[in-house]
Amino acid sequence: MKLKDIDAHVLVKPGETARLKERDCVCAGLFPDKDEAEKVRKDNSKAIDALQDKMWAERTRALLVVLQGIDTSGKDGTVRGVFNACGPLGVCVTPFGRPTEEELAHDYLWRVHAAVPKKGIIGVFNRSHYEDVLVVKVRKLAPADAVERRYEEINAFEKHLTQNGVTILKFMLHISKDEQAERLQERLDAPEKHWKFNPGDLEDRALWDDYAAAYETALTRCSTAHAPWRIVPADKKWRRNAIISSVVLETLEKMGPKYPKPDWKASDFKIV
Amino acid sequence: MKLKDIDAHVLVKPGETARLKERDCVCAGLFPDKDEAEKVRKDNSKAIDALQDKMWAERTRALLVVLQGIDTSGKDGTVRGVFNACGPLGVCVTPFGRPTEEELAHDYLWRVHAAVPKKGIIGVFNRSHYEDVLVVKVRKLAPADAVERRYEEINAFEKHLTQNGVTILKFMLHISKDEQAERLQERLDAPEKHWKFNPGDLEDRALWDDYAAAYETALTRCSTAHAPWRIVPADKKWRRNAIISSVVLETLEKMGPKYPKPDWKASDFKIV
Repeated sequence: MKLKDIDAHVLVKPGETARLKERDCVCAGLFPDKDEAEKVRKDNSKAIDALQDKMWAERTRALLVVLQGIDTSGKDGTVRGVFNACGPLGVCVTPFGRPTEEELAHDYLWRVHAAVPKKGIIGVFNRSHYEDVLVVKVRKLAPADAVERRYEEINAFEKHLTQNGVTILKFMLHISKDEQAERLQERLDAPEKHWKFNPGDLEDRALWDDYAAAYETALTRCSTAHAPWRIVPADKKWRRNAIISSVVLETLEKMGPKYPKPDWKASDFKIV
Repeated sequence: MKLKDIDAHVLVKPGETARLKERDCVCAGLFPDKDEAEKVRKDNSKAIDALQDKMWAERTRALLVVLQGIDTSGKDGTVRGVFNACGPLGVCVTPFGRPTEEELAHDYLWRVHAAVPKKGIIGVFNRSHYEDVLVVKVRKLAPADAVERRYEEINAFEKHLTQNGVTILKFMLHISKDEQAERLQERLDAPEKHWKFNPGDLEDRALWDDYAAAYETALTRCSTAHAPWRIVPADKKWRRNAIISSVVLETLEKMGPKYPKPDWKASDFKIV
């Protein structure tokens, strides 16, 4: 499925209001068949690997993939499904948790800038600077006027990156409240998943509408021409992976990395 | 194949002289069958993934895998073969190339220490601090007496890490001079591999015996009880991967990470 057909469902057009509640978390029309979606994901992830190899050979630009979503929305699963074929040689994942004291002693974009992938690499942010207008806003961890200024600051920061060789893809993994309930329950039911369950997650769940409102504002104000947001129906993991891998792949194809031509001829050398 | 049987072929026993020339680069007796070796690698890499997940859940210790070897010895291929199943969520690869100005402005272990994997993660060094007693020695990039002091410094550094929760595995990928010739020629013959060919590699090849001597000294003096060296026959990629994945897996099994037990009961929570 081509990017423009996917984007008809998932893209937040710059200037448009995101309207999270009107977005379907299932979206059965996109990649309707599970087996085919799995095949798409698998083929895409191999093709992504091949293009990343060329990007690494070129070493002139990078791809940054931002994954945002509420607990259990599938950020880790997306990394596995879309990027394991590429592997740790080509992909660098940075999780952004609660900031350390050192990080809090700097501006909120400091740690983010430090984690921007170097040329040739695909960087994945598992959560990101958007937490600074999401959890920070909902939990009132910074003054309201500082948060208010951040949307514009984030847009300027992302514009800077895109003008300096970093293509940015931003995905909001959109799951329904019912689906989250099921996934949290799974973590409670399976002893080997207990470590993933954090009682604090229930506090965030109780703030569901506040988070939804904060997401709507962020998705609306920070979906720009240079770094648009995509809202990915994520209740079905296989559909989520098919969608995201398709967007990543077509983006890399458009970037069109090529193996560089050396300034020597193979016949110049004899291996002895 | 159990670790002790593999180690009978690959381990440099602490105190023993490494004798690189007496080590077989093929070692047909270890994992003699290619298809079976491939199956071993595949099963091992999945089991490594499962154990890394537990190590991440525990978050009390880390595994550091050091890969050393001459150009084309298969360091990247090892990462792909052994660690792609684990993926970029659980594995962080750090390549050590020519030091930057900033790195040279510090002692040689500074950049290395900064790249040590955090608790829960498998870190892979693609080249390492051993370059500071290999290329640096062969190319005389530091005074001889400074290099001479480094073996002991490295042993002390690695002991510090192992005493602080970092298990260290060190693999020297041992290929023959003929095999390197073939692999370099492949890079010259295939246009899509030209970017991997660096004319400077031939200068290093011309210094083959000097590198072998520097390796022997390093492997001999830095194979310690806390961080022994293993010399892996690497002319056959599938054998190399079967060996390394087996050593990594059995090491993780001995570390024995377990999912932590939470201080709550699942029945304490009701998801609403």
